Amino acid sequence: MFKFSELLELINTHIASLTFSRKPQGLYAPVSYVLSLGGKRIRPVLMLMAYNLYKEDVKSILNQTTGIEVYHNYTLLHDDLMDQADRRRGKATVHKVWNENTAILSGDAMLVLAYQFMAADCPSSSLKKVTDLFSLTALEICEGQQYDMEFETRNDVTEAEYIEMIRLKTSVLLAASLKIGAWLGGASEEDAARLYDFGMNLGVAFQLKDDWLDVYGNPEVFGKNIGGDILCNKKTYLLIQALKHANEEQSRQLQQWLDATEYEPTEKIAAVKSLYDEIGVNRMCLQKIEEYTALAAKSLEEVDVPASAKVELKDLMNQLMKREV
Amino acid sequence: MFKFSELLELINTHIASLTFSRKPQGLYAPVSYVLSLGGKRIRPVLMLMAYNLYKEDVKSILNQTTGIEVYHNYTLLHDDLMDQADRRRGKATVHKVWNENTAILSGDAMLVLAYQFMAADCPSSSLKKVTDLFSLTALEICEGQQYDMEFETRNDVTEAEYIEMIRLKTSVLLAASLKIGAWLGGASEEDAARLYDFGMNLGVAFQLKDDWLDVYGNPEVFGKNIGGDILCNKKTYLLIQALKHANEEQSRQLQQWLDATEYEPTEKIAAVKSLYDEIGVNRMCLQKIEEYTALAAKSLEEVDVPASAKVELKDLMNQLMKREV
Repeated sequence: MFKFSELLELINTHIASLTFSRKPQGLYAPVSYVLSLGGKRIRPVLMLMAYNLYKEDVKSILNQTTGIEVYHNYTLLHDDLMDQADRRRGKATVHKVWNENTAILSGDAMLVLAYQFMAADCPSSSLKKVTDLFSLTALEICEGQQYDMEFETRNDVTEAEYIEMIRLKTSVLLAASLKIGAWLGGASEEDAARLYDFGMNLGVAFQLKDDWLDVYGNPEVFGKNIGGDILCNKKTYLLIQALKHANEEQSRQLQQWLDATEYEPTEKIAAVKSLYDEIGVNRMCLQKIEEYTALAAKSLEEVDVPASAKVELKDLMNQLMKREV
Repeated sequence: MFKFSELLELINTHIASLTFSRKPQGLYAPVSYVLSLGGKRIRPVLMLMAYNLYKEDVKSILNQTTGIEVYHNYTLLHDDLMDQADRRRGKATVHKVWNENTAILSGDAMLVLAYQFMAADCPSSSLKKVTDLFSLTALEICEGQQYDMEFETRNDVTEAEYIEMIRLKTSVLLAASLKIGAWLGGASEEDAARLYDFGMNLGVAFQLKDDWLDVYGNPEVFGKNIGGDILCNKKTYLLIQALKHANEEQSRQLQQWLDATEYEPTEKIAAVKSLYDEIGVNRMCLQKIEEYTALAAKSLEEVDVPASAKVELKDLMNQLMKREV
């Protein structure tokens, strides 16, 4: 059984070795650029771990793990363009280094490349179900991104709608990574479904943790600026719950900050954070993270392999939940 | 054997019957909108005709024909955004009716939908080669679009580079439509390759005809405004050949019009057209169209089915070449 660090090393080495030598260079240079920016590589690691529950020759599915990572990076590329984000992982985004058309087109090419990697050396007995799940997942992620954009202009987003949005935008890809890894490893359909559920719940917990870190993270450890979501009025779990549970006075103050056009950033962050604390959304968010983590743990528990084989997946889950970045 | 009009009717009826009922509506409404704008439906018709050389149950590949048409419309959607085109088939483009982010995201969803249609009910014996060719073709089309954009800022594009660009941007999709249809119909690899070549050459002739029609088309019949390419200095076959074959004085005049920032549109069109005539690029373009049409005809000739079965494909080729729109 491989350790997390070994699998991560395997993926990083493999991705670093990829060359996109087709022409024109203007189309493929952004692809190499995006993939060189790094990232946690969680999705390919999950795929390898799920595979490794059943088989040892993890290198045989490097094409599929690459496909998932290329796909994930295409979504970041297009999302950054749609969000007009200037930076990603400390570097300028593709539409800033090149231009918007390049971001659209190189992103499109990455989506096609992802399909190519996904199909490359895929056993013919699995090809249909792997590509079907991959397509469904890619469609769900478009749906999640659309909901996310629509929520920006809505003030009545419910908790359930929010959870559904992050399920689509984030969780389904973790879930699909695990299920594809399991299928390729020869898992039973029952186990594949359990690993899918594990990824789904882990994904929701993961995204809620992201929301939480933006406000309560340690500024010295957290990569992004603390309070970024607060400054742009992002509809996070915290804000949605704050709007729902605020009393009249808290509601008035919160709305004032949401409507404010001129303010000191540090002042807005401190004020909203203090309202969050008063309303109790810090606690609510942590509790929700625990809930989804427990659901994930339960699904993993049920996977029909020896407990010792699941140690790495369990550790990864715990690390993701304890993470400070 | 089905006639062109019967196959077109079949496709139009089928596409009109599609409902994209997944949510959110904000993601899928643009998909329905784009598909409702119509178009020549040449690619799905070619696929059905290639299939029909070998089999009669053309309805059995309606998913794949839909996949090709959805794919083609995704490229138009993203290309129109990149070109900042306001109109398509007489209607406002998606980024005008909705906005740029919707155009990016709904286009992305259409690319995934195209893969879904392509794989739906695809015989497992063909799935791998069909999706592999589809992915390669989609990548080549990105490459063609990238070249097209790069050519805008270059003044030294050669005839060979231009032909390669339109081969990538236009021809490979016609070629792939035919080859996939042939494969699904059970054609030999030799026939499938011949039909691919037929589509490739037909595609180049088709695009050159497009360039020619923009200048020499009948304004009363041609849908777009005559001279549109001239006004935006588009690097068409005509302009590339004019730049190459102009004498010193013609070259000076042509460059003056290319550099002009203030002019009467009708005056620029008339002047450039008159230079084209003097330089002889009208004739050169028509000759090139003939050349590629002859190559296409030869490939079709070699397809190993009775000549009577190829009548519809031959007629379609001739119609496309004689077309005035």
